[in-house]
Amino acid sequence: MNILDIIAKKRDKNVLSKEEIEFFIQGYTNGEITDYQASSLIMAIYINGMTDEELTYLTFSMAKSGEVIDLSEFGETIVDKHSTGGVGDKVSIILLPIIASLGIPVAKMSGRGLGFTGGTVDKMEAIPGYNTNIDITKFKENIHKVGISMIGQTKNLAPADKKIYELRDSINCVDNISLIASSIMSKKIALGSNKIVLEVTYGKGAFMKNIEDAKLLANKMEKIGELANREVKSIFTPMDEPIGYAVGNTLEIIEAINFLKGKQMPEDLKNIVLELGSYMIKLAGQGENLEENKQKMLDSINQGLAYEKFKQMVQNQGGDISYLENTDKFEKAKYELKVISDKCGIIQEINAKEIGELACFLGAGRVRKEDEIDKAVRNCT
Amino acid sequence: MNILDIIAKKRDKNVLSKEEIEFFIQGYTNGEITDYQASSLIMAIYINGMTDEELTYLTFSMAKSGEVIDLSEFGETIVDKHSTGGVGDKVSIILLPIIASLGIPVAKMSGRGLGFTGGTVDKMEAIPGYNTNIDITKFKENIHKVGISMIGQTKNLAPADKKIYELRDSINCVDNISLIASSIMSKKIALGSNKIVLEVTYGKGAFMKNIEDAKLLANKMEKIGELANREVKSIFTPMDEPIGYAVGNTLEIIEAINFLKGKQMPEDLKNIVLELGSYMIKLAGQGENLEENKQKMLDSINQGLAYEKFKQMVQNQGGDISYLENTDKFEKAKYELKVISDKCGIIQEINAKEIGELACFLGAGRVRKEDEIDKAVRNCT
Repeated sequence: MNILDIIAKKRDKNVLSKEEIEFFIQGYTNGEITDYQASSLIMAIYINGMTDEELTYLTFSMAKSGEVIDLSEFGETIVDKHSTGGVGDKVSIILLPIIASLGIPVAKMSGRGLGFTGGTVDKMEAIPGYNTNIDITKFKENIHKVGISMIGQTKNLAPADKKIYELRDSINCVDNISLIASSIMSKKIALGSNKIVLEVTYGKGAFMKNIEDAKLLANKMEKIGELANREVKSIFTPMDEPIGYAVGNTLEIIEAINFLKGKQMPEDLKNIVLELGSYMIKLAGQGENLEENKQKMLDSINQGLAYEKFKQMVQNQGGDISYLENTDKFEKAKYELKVISDKCGIIQEINAKEIGELACFLGAGRVRKEDEIDKAVRNCT
Repeated sequence: MNILDIIAKKRDKNVLSKEEIEFFIQGYTNGEITDYQASSLIMAIYINGMTDEELTYLTFSMAKSGEVIDLSEFGETIVDKHSTGGVGDKVSIILLPIIASLGIPVAKMSGRGLGFTGGTVDKMEAIPGYNTNIDITKFKENIHKVGISMIGQTKNLAPADKKIYELRDSINCVDNISLIASSIMSKKIALGSNKIVLEVTYGKGAFMKNIEDAKLLANKMEKIGELANREVKSIFTPMDEPIGYAVGNTLEIIEAINFLKGKQMPEDLKNIVLELGSYMIKLAGQGENLEENKQKMLDSINQGLAYEKFKQMVQNQGGDISYLENTDKFEKAKYELKVISDKCGIIQEINAKEIGELACFLGAGRVRKEDEIDKAVRNCT
């Protein structure tokens, strides 16, 4: 087997075998296959497509390219959630402590922000002392101890996916639904989850610009899930405006804390949290009725259990919980600019992408992966 | 303008503008555009194709990427010949001195061999002392002095074509008729010729395996020629068996010398030489009647003028003409193996590709461009 034959096969619109896809992924990960060979193959895949079987082999190969985490010690059902992202998305930070407070183990690895959407890890790190850089042994210990751990992706998680994603980015081959689906699923499989609630966002503030593309992506992931023996349940969220009121890492953490305390629950944010959570509980085998599941979540908040779980997790990972108790302690942005309308009226629309880009420009996000972020950027409420 | 937009445009089957193609070629030649970006674009071009206009822009951009030679001091009509190659192809070595002996200036730059076909430069270098590595000023001086010069390609001739060819080779995108046509024409344009007799070979011993592909290639080159204001006249030669009797650099030089001396003219070789030559003379404006042109060529050989011209050229470029006068002086291969048939009969077929590969394996050719060759390999007659 050699890469030139594999390139020619996909170039000529043929179907690659499992062995050929594995050969490519292994060779590219260990550097035997060059960037320029990989990029020609990626372009051929982009143009000529892949069958669902090919995509599943690609997904598994990428998952197996690094450490594959075994979470079976936490039971047969490991539920994860994934969102294709949005501006002001603090859903995981609110949702997962609620789920953990209901006795469902939560093992969550999140990414950092890129472009105009933020990342959960960056947001969690706005809590002074909170450590997201934790090894797998410690990660599992945390879950055994407090039932939940939220950390950053380990370096060795699906390295082939990382390498291919960066290559796709540099040859304008990112916006391909099949490759996006395979990329997401490869990380979920490497993370050891076997049931996934997938939130596909669409609209101005999301990568998928319309519901049709969102459905295609969900369908592709469900297909891969089916062939990979992973259950995928998709929900769709319009993302024209930011989620909740806050955008910016520290501001979003404060909004999440207030939500968990039951103090302030913006309607749109509440709906997403309850919707996703109700399915997670169902997939975890803890309740068939979605409305009842939502009620359980609200009860947990009202009884202070969700906030308590969040505090436990933060403390367990070195975070200073005095910031949670008193959110006024968070560092404030140096400058504040009130935007006051000249005229009286009702705001009709807030463009999520523009707000995200503004936050990113102010330093809350990254344009390139190497960029440092400014956690205190509190650009809008 | 940026390379990512250009990649996306071709990826999505759109037509690139002249400016976009120039931007790519310039950027790739000077290293601003990476190999992996170029390879993704080449793959997109391979799969989605290019219009004749795009191909012409590509051709001109590659031609202009290095030195463009101005041969106008030798008259308005600069005739060149090009062959897509074959095994045992010593046509240029015989044909061009004949043409020069008829008073038509010959400025010939040739390539080296690659794979199972040999290269004219390697063959000429089998003559001790003959220098093929000559700069453009000296090249032109030679033509003024003796009417002919045959040299190797200067390093700065269409460097973009060289870089792209090597890239295509490493991503299995060589066998694309449009890209082959553009590659050949870019060098012809950089070389300053405006009339080209093109011999397209097809069959077992050629890169084009059948007459249909040969015609497609000729058609593509004629189209580019039309748009580039260069006249291209194509002839087609079957190449299932080696041309003439000799294969191997020294043996082929000896065969060429004997041909020019009028001592031995294998029928197939003679036909190709006369056919190509008759068109060259016509394109040069020296005779409309092809049969008469052929006769002029034969007369030149019979009168010793063609051999005399060859000798002049060799001497003028430092070659030892005593080898021409007495071909027994050429170094002999160390081993000789007579292949004697057990049975009496007539040889029905000699597979050109297999003979070429055998010669290449014995050291007469290169598998990779960096390989050294053994000039004394005289593997078959």
